[in-house]
Amino acid sequence: MNAGRGLWITLEGGDGSGKTTQAALLDEWLRAQGLQTLRTREPGGSEVGVLIRDIVLHHRGDIAPRAEALLYAADRAHHVATVVDPALDRGEVVIQDRYLDSSVAYQGAGRVLDPAEVRSLSLWATGGALPDLTILLDLDSAAARRRLDSADKPFDRLEAEQGEFHVRVRAAFLALAAAEPERFLVIDAAQDPAVIAEMVRARVAPLLD
Amino acid sequence: MNAGRGLWITLEGGDGSGKTTQAALLDEWLRAQGLQTLRTREPGGSEVGVLIRDIVLHHRGDIAPRAEALLYAADRAHHVATVVDPALDRGEVVIQDRYLDSSVAYQGAGRVLDPAEVRSLSLWATGGALPDLTILLDLDSAAARRRLDSADKPFDRLEAEQGEFHVRVRAAFLALAAAEPERFLVIDAAQDPAVIAEMVRARVAPLLD
Repeated sequence: MNAGRGLWITLEGGDGSGKTTQAALLDEWLRAQGLQTLRTREPGGSEVGVLIRDIVLHHRGDIAPRAEALLYAADRAHHVATVVDPALDRGEVVIQDRYLDSSVAYQGAGRVLDPAEVRSLSLWATGGALPDLTILLDLDSAAARRRLDSADKPFDRLEAEQGEFHVRVRAAFLALAAAEPERFLVIDAAQDPAVIAEMVRARVAPLLD
Repeated sequence: MNAGRGLWITLEGGDGSGKTTQAALLDEWLRAQGLQTLRTREPGGSEVGVLIRDIVLHHRGDIAPRAEALLYAADRAHHVATVVDPALDRGEVVIQDRYLDSSVAYQGAGRVLDPAEVRSLSLWATGGALPDLTILLDLDSAAARRRLDSADKPFDRLEAEQGEFHVRVRAAFLALAAAEPERFLVIDAAQDPAVIAEMVRARVAPLLD
């Protein structure tokens, strides 16, 4: 970790890929070492973000694609400025469910917008802030769908979109990881959660020195 | 007007400059000629926009400056795509209270952000859409404050910001008008409303042919 500056770790991947489980296991392991941690997420990781998340995920009726991308970016700008940056300044480890890679994968590859423009928008929102490490939990779309079906919970608007969409999103995540191998750790999420957690720890440990 | 395409008129200026009065008088005059009109506004000119406007104007506590600019841009993207463009496609005259010039003047000149970046953001939001005519109702800040005080209504968050801020906003509006003289009509808003309405009609009339 930089002197006086914490460590920022984001988790990415489709719904059902196990981000929540791995975030909890990583958090537990870090706290057992006496480190201060902050678990957070986008969208909805701040008070303003909760209001924005509610519009994006639960509004009845279509939202114009650029409006949706701008709402995610607004959530991001407020979240990084008021939640993530202050925690990093306090020297904490921030464990975050989704960040700009999700916007690029879902909005850019999945929808009608140019992925490079969506990325620029996100970077403008945060003044160019990027995590120290991004863990991509990669799961083929059929396996992800089986996991969500078995969980028997109601789908939200994004989850309800269908198979072809998830195939494109997965490909977009993998392309992002390939473009920034130093920032990304890609893990086959079909493995046992304990095995995945061990791979995560092996990559995080040297970053704590 | 272009063949099959309506006419898009925006009104700009500080609070208390008489935008609402002039929009109503222009609307009345156009309807008397048998034209279809649509009166709208930003933020809050669409269903999604009402939700965004509520966050921007009435949230308790600060909103990060870039988040605020992104929320205005999101409102704009959805409003133009779902309200303004369809009305123009129907051949209507759209009379709109505030558009991107307000964002540039308030966010850029008044706050901490680069005006050119705020303008780029707005233009990305709408795919570069600009009105056929923008009417700037220019009022010196002392006169604007007297009008608002005499109206005896509660101030919202933006209105509550003080004198110096309004001076910078006014200067920013005038600079925008100077940079695009073909698009802007600048009117001294201290004049009698009937006189102002006449000046507006004189400029709009040839655009209706």
